[in-house]
Amino acid sequence: MIDDPTNTPAALKGTGFSPPVDDQPEGEALAPEALQSHDRPLAPGLYLVATPIGNLEDITLRALRVLRSVDRIACEDTRQTAKLLGHFGIRTPTVSYHAHNENSRASELIEALKAGGRIAVVSDAGMPGIADPGATIAAEAIAAGVTVFPIPGANAALSALIASGLPAERFSFHGFLPSREGQRRTTLESLRTETRDVPTTDIFYETPHRIADALADIVATFGPQQRIVLARELTKLHEEFLRGTAAELLATLTARPSIRGEIVLLIENSPTPATSSEGVPTSTLADEVTTLMRVESLSEKDALKRVAKARGIGKSEAYREFQRSPSRRR
Amino acid sequence: MIDDPTNTPAALKGTGFSPPVDDQPEGEALAPEALQSHDRPLAPGLYLVATPIGNLEDITLRALRVLRSVDRIACEDTRQTAKLLGHFGIRTPTVSYHAHNENSRASELIEALKAGGRIAVVSDAGMPGIADPGATIAAEAIAAGVTVFPIPGANAALSALIASGLPAERFSFHGFLPSREGQRRTTLESLRTETRDVPTTDIFYETPHRIADALADIVATFGPQQRIVLARELTKLHEEFLRGTAAELLATLTARPSIRGEIVLLIENSPTPATSSEGVPTSTLADEVTTLMRVESLSEKDALKRVAKARGIGKSEAYREFQRSPSRRR
Repeated sequence: MIDDPTNTPAALKGTGFSPPVDDQPEGEALAPEALQSHDRPLAPGLYLVATPIGNLEDITLRALRVLRSVDRIACEDTRQTAKLLGHFGIRTPTVSYHAHNENSRASELIEALKAGGRIAVVSDAGMPGIADPGATIAAEAIAAGVTVFPIPGANAALSALIASGLPAERFSFHGFLPSREGQRRTTLESLRTETRDVPTTDIFYETPHRIADALADIVATFGPQQRIVLARELTKLHEEFLRGTAAELLATLTARPSIRGEIVLLIENSPTPATSSEGVPTSTLADEVTTLMRVESLSEKDALKRVAKARGIGKSEAYREFQRSPSRRR
Repeated sequence: MIDDPTNTPAALKGTGFSPPVDDQPEGEALAPEALQSHDRPLAPGLYLVATPIGNLEDITLRALRVLRSVDRIACEDTRQTAKLLGHFGIRTPTVSYHAHNENSRASELIEALKAGGRIAVVSDAGMPGIADPGATIAAEAIAAGVTVFPIPGANAALSALIASGLPAERFSFHGFLPSREGQRRTTLESLRTETRDVPTTDIFYETPHRIADALADIVATFGPQQRIVLARELTKLHEEFLRGTAAELLATLTARPSIRGEIVLLIENSPTPATSSEGVPTSTLADEVTTLMRVESLSEKDALKRVAKARGIGKSEAYREFQRSPSRRR
């Protein structure tokens, strides 16, 4: 149970995701500054605070108040966070946490939290804990019985999704695509063959120097007509959305002298048809081999042979595909 | 290409998701109000603006500036948005859009945008276009060549995820669980049997009156020891996270006289073992039937018979499971 008197009263609320409600008459609207009161204490606990992903205005009133009011801010990189804090005139002390010291730093912070402290965690950009090391501190705080408050805000994946024009009712976030071609193709192939009964969008982060290779692999797995969207420099001056087929966007990027800024890559993933456009079965080769081994009691070798024949491919090709399939490891 | 002079200069930026950078000396930090300048015009286009999900402070400085500066705000429900706007003293005219008039309203808004207008779209709460009808307007604006700007902010799914303690490197959002038990179990079962090579978290929204049934179905599909988290009244005074096994949380909720507020339900979904704890194969029955039909050229009936035998279940049970499988429709 949370005792944060600065939240709006629960008695005025309906269902969880209903819009904000307050009984303030419209004529007496509050200015935003009125909400940033410094005289009310913040409840003890760990605050996971979202920070801007490029545009400094993309921070909430509550995030600013929490960053001002906590005892300490644990930062992925204190120099980066110093720029944000300096911009908003926030003088709260910072400490660093990163992949190399997160475990020891977490223990230290948990001790302070157990003593009733109020600590914020921020990553370099966006929501802490998503594709960054903040998750360990949160997990340890939870294990220690400390209250953890999410303070929502900017996130690159969702920002890209809502303006992509692709299905946003359901989506999956996968972090960065693998850097090696074999693994990248395996990842893409397993998404293409997943059973789906509704449209969804698969979201990845990709670096500018690998995006052309990634698009080539999408052409090779999903086909040249696959609909995708690339979002670059999100929330910044040169924010750009590129929408089209995999082949079109590969041509567009290849024609550019250089590509800057990390990229959100979105792949439309519609309900799986019986076979892909090339007539390739949609279940994975490894799944078929596993099924034959179990249901027909075949050896791995015999199962592979039959599946290769049914697919019209050579045994060695079938074996290579089987070797690199993640489902083989089940 | 975007020409929004109110964004921070791109020349000062590094990679896309690097932290915000500015050359303001720390001693001359800007107050937040300084960013809310009204003298710089907003670029023409459609602004998809995130709004609070419960706590009125969960809105960004840029969202407030955009809502103040656009010509019109298209709202899922103008009465709900009026409360938010009134709270912040924003007097921008609003128009409604909802499932029943979204197509005609979208055409009207697109005309205004093509003439150089600046229009914001908001849902009742959170990021517009995710699990709400705002997506149509965005898609039509994109098709008409209008620039679409995402203005990030609060989202219930991500807020729940970062404070859940569950894997947050990869996750899938599925919207609301189906309301009927058969469909709900099919959905859960297909997630359980999906091939995964890394831990991920499946995120759903659920209503308070159905959450106990949903938990019972998780116990029946994933098993009583399945690790899940429920988040209630997110960002509000009575924000609550319940973490434990499916059986524990079912017992906790059943013991309560009532449950209020919509719920974010998070299911930890770890790499699939060879078989579940009950020894049930992890590939779906329908996938196995399809594989046998294709690879062994069996009839549907014969394939079903063999799969039933291999699983040690009756033919009629196998047939029922096959009937309700989404992959059967491939």
